[in-house]
Amino acid sequence: MNWKLAARAEKMNPSVIREILKVTERPGVISLAGGLPSPKTFPIQAFAEACAEVLHKDGQAALQYAASEGYGPLREAVSKMLPWPVDPAQVLITTGSQQGLDLIAKVLLDPGSRVLVETPTYLGALQAFSPMEPLAVSVASDDEGVKVEDMVAKAQDARFIYLLPNFQNPTGRTMTEERRAAVSAAAAKAGLPIVEDNPYGELWFDKAPPLPLTARNPEGCIYLGSFSKVLAPGLRLGFLVAPKAIFPKLLQAKQAADLHTPSFNQRLVSEVMKDGFLQTHVPTIRSLYKRQRDAMLDALAREMKGLQVEYNKPDGGMFLWMRLPAGVDAVALLPKAVERGVAFVPGSPFYAGEGDPRTLRLSFVTASVDEINTSIAALADAVREQLAHSAAAEVQRQMASSAD
Amino acid sequence: MNWKLAARAEKMNPSVIREILKVTERPGVISLAGGLPSPKTFPIQAFAEACAEVLHKDGQAALQYAASEGYGPLREAVSKMLPWPVDPAQVLITTGSQQGLDLIAKVLLDPGSRVLVETPTYLGALQAFSPMEPLAVSVASDDEGVKVEDMVAKAQDARFIYLLPNFQNPTGRTMTEERRAAVSAAAAKAGLPIVEDNPYGELWFDKAPPLPLTARNPEGCIYLGSFSKVLAPGLRLGFLVAPKAIFPKLLQAKQAADLHTPSFNQRLVSEVMKDGFLQTHVPTIRSLYKRQRDAMLDALAREMKGLQVEYNKPDGGMFLWMRLPAGVDAVALLPKAVERGVAFVPGSPFYAGEGDPRTLRLSFVTASVDEINTSIAALADAVREQLAHSAAAEVQRQMASSAD
Repeated sequence: MNWKLAARAEKMNPSVIREILKVTERPGVISLAGGLPSPKTFPIQAFAEACAEVLHKDGQAALQYAASEGYGPLREAVSKMLPWPVDPAQVLITTGSQQGLDLIAKVLLDPGSRVLVETPTYLGALQAFSPMEPLAVSVASDDEGVKVEDMVAKAQDARFIYLLPNFQNPTGRTMTEERRAAVSAAAAKAGLPIVEDNPYGELWFDKAPPLPLTARNPEGCIYLGSFSKVLAPGLRLGFLVAPKAIFPKLLQAKQAADLHTPSFNQRLVSEVMKDGFLQTHVPTIRSLYKRQRDAMLDALAREMKGLQVEYNKPDGGMFLWMRLPAGVDAVALLPKAVERGVAFVPGSPFYAGEGDPRTLRLSFVTASVDEINTSIAALADAVREQLAHSAAAEVQRQMASSAD
Repeated sequence: MNWKLAARAEKMNPSVIREILKVTERPGVISLAGGLPSPKTFPIQAFAEACAEVLHKDGQAALQYAASEGYGPLREAVSKMLPWPVDPAQVLITTGSQQGLDLIAKVLLDPGSRVLVETPTYLGALQAFSPMEPLAVSVASDDEGVKVEDMVAKAQDARFIYLLPNFQNPTGRTMTEERRAAVSAAAAKAGLPIVEDNPYGELWFDKAPPLPLTARNPEGCIYLGSFSKVLAPGLRLGFLVAPKAIFPKLLQAKQAADLHTPSFNQRLVSEVMKDGFLQTHVPTIRSLYKRQRDAMLDALAREMKGLQVEYNKPDGGMFLWMRLPAGVDAVALLPKAVERGVAFVPGSPFYAGEGDPRTLRLSFVTASVDEINTSIAALADAVREQLAHSAAAEVQRQMASSAD
């Protein structure tokens, strides 16, 4: 048969992370790799009660086709959750916030369109944009977020900049208040739209992160949010907030993509959230994740001593970013680490441009404290082995070169 | 702000049907317009039990991220449901079968690619394909389905032909066994892939429709199925079956689009279906819809007598297709019908090429038998009024022309 692929499909590749995770799915391997929320935080009882209530009260509507925009009371609840004035008519419920990225790509990206991204950036966003064949341009970034001068220098003809300011995936870093103010002002001046992705913002440990970029210039931003990290990812429920100028196009793209997000799931979450459930539930997630971050930082301080490993101390979210010593490549390290019983994600797939091969991402939320202790010790062993291996190779190289 | 839309988004338009339905959403108007299954058929009690069971047995997994391919036992169940040998590895669970159309468009359509469609065809498919900017080419069709000679004549360079052989939306027609055999053989000979959409196939009234096209040539077809019409559309659960040659690309597109279909919904449906639930449930839908089709046919025979209205007798599904008398335009008729308390969908948006302005689609499944009787009488009144209006206009036109 003559199955001729579209040009965009010829370029599609299996997710690097997906392929990596396949290798790591061995019994006995502790995974610090995936971005899975701790299932201990899923409010199973609350969902069970909500299922019964929704089906009893409103079963026929909950199981019927529904509006592409989303369930009215949920759009209303979302608009009330956000820390700036949002008209519920600007809220589009999506099948996970990943779908928001897909819709934005369809509506805003032509083949060859420039999209600015952080260095590094969320891999899933690169994957969502990629079918529309844009040119992803890496903007220099430091511990405070994306660098304003480089953003402005690259803003010409860019369709938007994609930013994840809170507890970023993969780095765990948070954009400071000063940087937010500067990025927001510079983007507005350059006419550069911002796509702000905020799945982790509620998972802060000591204090809430600064106000979203969208709150500073709602007409210049599309905001993406998710229930995956505060309730449960298996319901695939996210949302976007868009300026009225482009909302109708996003809605049309949504309708063509899957008609609407499951009505049952929207009503479930709406039911669970009523009476302020999140106000008591989210703090329990925060304190669990904070304990696990602390455990990982303690284990790292203990196990990585003297290893010239650099890592940050995230103020929230799920991830910690590490840079290995000179001579140790994260991709080469991975199979050695898996042999010792620990898996992580190498950092290079997260870069739109050339990646730093010494970086890697560790999740501190899925494994237990005991598992974190065991696995960080194993990781340190693997690093030591690679260092020894690299030192031996260096000696051999020098001997070979002095023999010349 | 400089929101520059992608070329494809400039061409997106609000769904014509959506706009029409807005007009018809008045209290007291009986809608024969929407494609909504009868909510009476939704097995609410079975879903309530399945929710409790899934959350009790497997809550953490049901609420966690999951594989993009779909839930293993559900893929297995789908492969067993289908009347030809299907490897579960070829089954991709989708967020409604609408998403299957979106993924197929992404993977197979470049701007300007030719896609062959029936005359008329499912509007939602045209909408799903449209963001990838193909050229939809209308293939001549009769009561038995698409015409083979015209399909072959237009097959050159076409990426695929999109067919809905069972109780088609919008016409309600079913492709005969002879036509299937001829279409399948001719498409295979021309190297023309088939995308076969089968959401209504289980809703037959007297006997099951002939074997799917895909069963005749699995390597040449992508098959789309749905749980929307046999269980409930509000869960957004569909699937596709694709040849191994293109399955990986569809899977990558799926992952980029929404990571995966809600794990909870997949487990729910898997739980509901176990122990052969569909075998007892689907016959109750068939008999309800058959009664309602009969009621509509009786009402039409009674009310439309002498009106030169043509319509078919669907052997299953949800829709009946009507052609109005000469001089009566379905779009012009709609507001008059709504004034009398009945809504329908004009046929013209369902045509990829020029539509027949005298056609319209009636759903016989959402309204009750009483409502069908009332609304068909109202529709007949509206037709009579339009005919009188058109006759009066004709007299006036002739008088004006004889006065010249």
